[in-house]
Amino acid sequence: MSVLITGSIALDSVKTPLEERRDLLGGSASYAGVAAGFFTEVNLVGIVGNDFPQAYLELYRKHRINLDGLEIANGKTFRWSGEYEWDMNNRRTLSVALNVFEQFRPVLPESYRQTPYVFLANIAPQLQLHVLSQMERPRFVVADTMDLWIETAQAPLMELLGKIDCLVLNESEARQITKQTSLIKAGRLVRAWGPKYVVIKKGEHGCLLFGENFFFSAPAYPLEDIHDPTGAGDCFAGAFTGYLASVDCVDHETLRKAVIYGSVIASYNVEAFSLGRLQTLTPHDIEHRYRLFKLMSHFETM
Amino acid sequence: MSVLITGSIALDSVKTPLEERRDLLGGSASYAGVAAGFFTEVNLVGIVGNDFPQAYLELYRKHRINLDGLEIANGKTFRWSGEYEWDMNNRRTLSVALNVFEQFRPVLPESYRQTPYVFLANIAPQLQLHVLSQMERPRFVVADTMDLWIETAQAPLMELLGKIDCLVLNESEARQITKQTSLIKAGRLVRAWGPKYVVIKKGEHGCLLFGENFFFSAPAYPLEDIHDPTGAGDCFAGAFTGYLASVDCVDHETLRKAVIYGSVIASYNVEAFSLGRLQTLTPHDIEHRYRLFKLMSHFETM
Repeated sequence: MSVLITGSIALDSVKTPLEERRDLLGGSASYAGVAAGFFTEVNLVGIVGNDFPQAYLELYRKHRINLDGLEIANGKTFRWSGEYEWDMNNRRTLSVALNVFEQFRPVLPESYRQTPYVFLANIAPQLQLHVLSQMERPRFVVADTMDLWIETAQAPLMELLGKIDCLVLNESEARQITKQTSLIKAGRLVRAWGPKYVVIKKGEHGCLLFGENFFFSAPAYPLEDIHDPTGAGDCFAGAFTGYLASVDCVDHETLRKAVIYGSVIASYNVEAFSLGRLQTLTPHDIEHRYRLFKLMSHFETM
Repeated sequence: MSVLITGSIALDSVKTPLEERRDLLGGSASYAGVAAGFFTEVNLVGIVGNDFPQAYLELYRKHRINLDGLEIANGKTFRWSGEYEWDMNNRRTLSVALNVFEQFRPVLPESYRQTPYVFLANIAPQLQLHVLSQMERPRFVVADTMDLWIETAQAPLMELLGKIDCLVLNESEARQITKQTSLIKAGRLVRAWGPKYVVIKKGEHGCLLFGENFFFSAPAYPLEDIHDPTGAGDCFAGAFTGYLASVDCVDHETLRKAVIYGSVIASYNVEAFSLGRLQTLTPHDIEHRYRLFKLMSHFETM
């Protein structure tokens, strides 16, 4: 089955303590789309300006991303620039220029509307709702969000929670949205607001998946060096949803595996700037690291 | 096989946002000893004053703890009091009175010297070395430490690292001792200083075990409420070493299981003040939670 992905598409300038790069392909939908493309066909919904490099369109296509829902508008593409501190855990946004993204109000192509799996990557919850309202009974809807929307768009975000199957958020967002220190309480509380499943991403500490009478704790891949953490969360969620779509199943066993595949793709992605590492990633690489996740988390006979 | 455990024995006064308790049985050796006693016979090495309650001596004995190496000195028992903040993650020491602990310079009973497994719980590394020097070729030696010794007793601590098989330390201590932000780098670096294995405890995020071409990531048990975090690390390490001693094996599979048993006992211990929860803990409880650890961390068929 295929997956519909909407979110931001951006040209990023990223500075880490070691390197600086300009006009990299970025945005939540780019990372999520490429990650999902390792597992299934992707229907992308997004907007770019007419300055958007042709090479990036080709990159999308190479990764099984259908561009029928990509609007190329007159004007400049959304631009973001940010800087990571030396420990790579804290990010500072240096500048944001929404440009054509300000007018993003997508109308889905007819061919997209029955896509069974949906990932609403990080954009305003009003836009996530707008896209979701055009879908015809999707089987499984995953959404991401961020601190900004938790702070400024609580009402639409809560409305969204009632309409999705799974919310993916990071540790600090989980604490922020629930005002709970305990991630276990936070996971339970978010579920009470609607989504049947909640994934809390904890970076170097792995992630937690909460369901009804169901809890899964996944480790993080032990990376010594992180070159660019940008998009790791988007890659996780894109691969997570893409894997579910590829096997067209959302039982507990499949959800566990999807969490691991999400972690695998995210762990590769941070090894190079932008989507650099995923350009050369092979199915063999993915299976190799999937097996390592198994080795490093199993106890007793496998 | 039996395990020798040395460390502090204290009467603790603990304040949490919800409760306050005085003169509780505490100290690293008490927690570690009781935890290890669920798996094997324990040879305790420690010192108390003649004010030490008879009831606590009986508690030790009930938990398979041999007291031949416990010195009862004239004077008062070591006392500690501390307070936990509302999120239970930060602890403030309110007062410390070493009392008889100041004169702790143990001479091991002859019957202790061939104990094959050793856990040197948190005390000054000079004392850990002093105890270890009296042991006759132990099979596996585990040690714990703390921020104070990393700061004030670096030379004896480094000497100790060259003489043990496994160091257990928490996340912040691992970063402090190695000056590395990455726990993966920290684990590798500590191993380079001597111990074949390193365990980094991450509290609510579980723990990591590092060995040569060997890495194991264990989840934390998802507790919603923590009543008293005191001694969780000591329980972990005591149960970890106690389990290894009970099966008399230190291969990778056994080390993985030992990490899970350590996590199980530690997770129970924080459910009540002092050693309260462990007083009523049964082998059935332990196996039950061990199975839950398996359920919450496995993926694909078990």
